[in-house]
Amino acid sequence: MFNQRAPLDLAFQALSDPTRRAMVDRLSRGPASVSELAQPLAMSLPAVVQHVQVLEASGLVRSRKVGRVRTCHLEPAALRTVEAWITSRRRSWERTKDLLDALGAELRHQRASAAGS
Amino acid sequence: MFNQRAPLDLAFQALSDPTRRAMVDRLSRGPASVSELAQPLAMSLPAVVQHVQVLEASGLVRSRKVGRVRTCHLEPAALRTVEAWITSRRRSWERTKDLLDALGAELRHQRASAAGS
Repeated sequence: MFNQRAPLDLAFQALSDPTRRAMVDRLSRGPASVSELAQPLAMSLPAVVQHVQVLEASGLVRSRKVGRVRTCHLEPAALRTVEAWITSRRRSWERTKDLLDALGAELRHQRASAAGS
Repeated sequence: MFNQRAPLDLAFQALSDPTRRAMVDRLSRGPASVSELAQPLAMSLPAVVQHVQVLEASGLVRSRKVGRVRTCHLEPAALRTVEAWITSRRRSWERTKDLLDALGAELRHQRASAAGS
C-alpha cells in the first residue's frame, strides 16, 4: 500500500503520529537502536517496530542491522523535502499577503482622495 | 475526534493528502471560495467540502461565509508551527552530523598518528 502513495503523502502521514515524531526528534540528536527508541515509550517492542517501519516506508528514517542490533538514522533529504514544501507555501502566502495589504492601502488612499476632492 | 488530537497531529494528517495539499497550494496564492477550490479537482462538491473541513479542523485554513459564498484563507500561524517543527529537527540533525563527522576525522587522525609512531 505504502509504495503506491507519493513520498510527501507518506512523510506527512508518518509525522502525524506523536510517537513517530518523538522518534524523529530522538534521531535528530543521533542514530539509535530500536531498543533505544523504545526505551522512553510506554508500548510493546512490536508496536515500536511497526512505527519504525512506517518511518522507513516514508523515507524519513533508514536502518541497518549489524549482528543483532538494528540501528536507525534520520534521512535528511526526506526531511528537507517536507520542509521545502511547507516553506514554499508559507513564503507564497506572505508574498500574497503583502500584495493584498498594499492593494488595500492603495484603495483606502484613493477613497480618501476622492472624498477630499 | 479531531479536537482530541494535538494540533501537530492534525496539521500533518491534513497535509498527508494530495488534494488537501493542492488546496493549501492554491490558498497560498490568495483566498478562494469553496467553488474555486473545487474547480480544478475531479471530485464532487461534498467531497471537496469534506477536505476543507479537515483543513479547518487542523487550523491550517479558516473560512468565512458572506451571503452564499464561503471564502477560505490560509492560517499562516499553523503553517509556521509545522515548518518550525521540521526545521528544528533538520537543524538538530545537521549539528549532530557535523559533530559525528568531526569525531570521525579526529579518530582517523589519531589512528594515523598511532600507526606512524
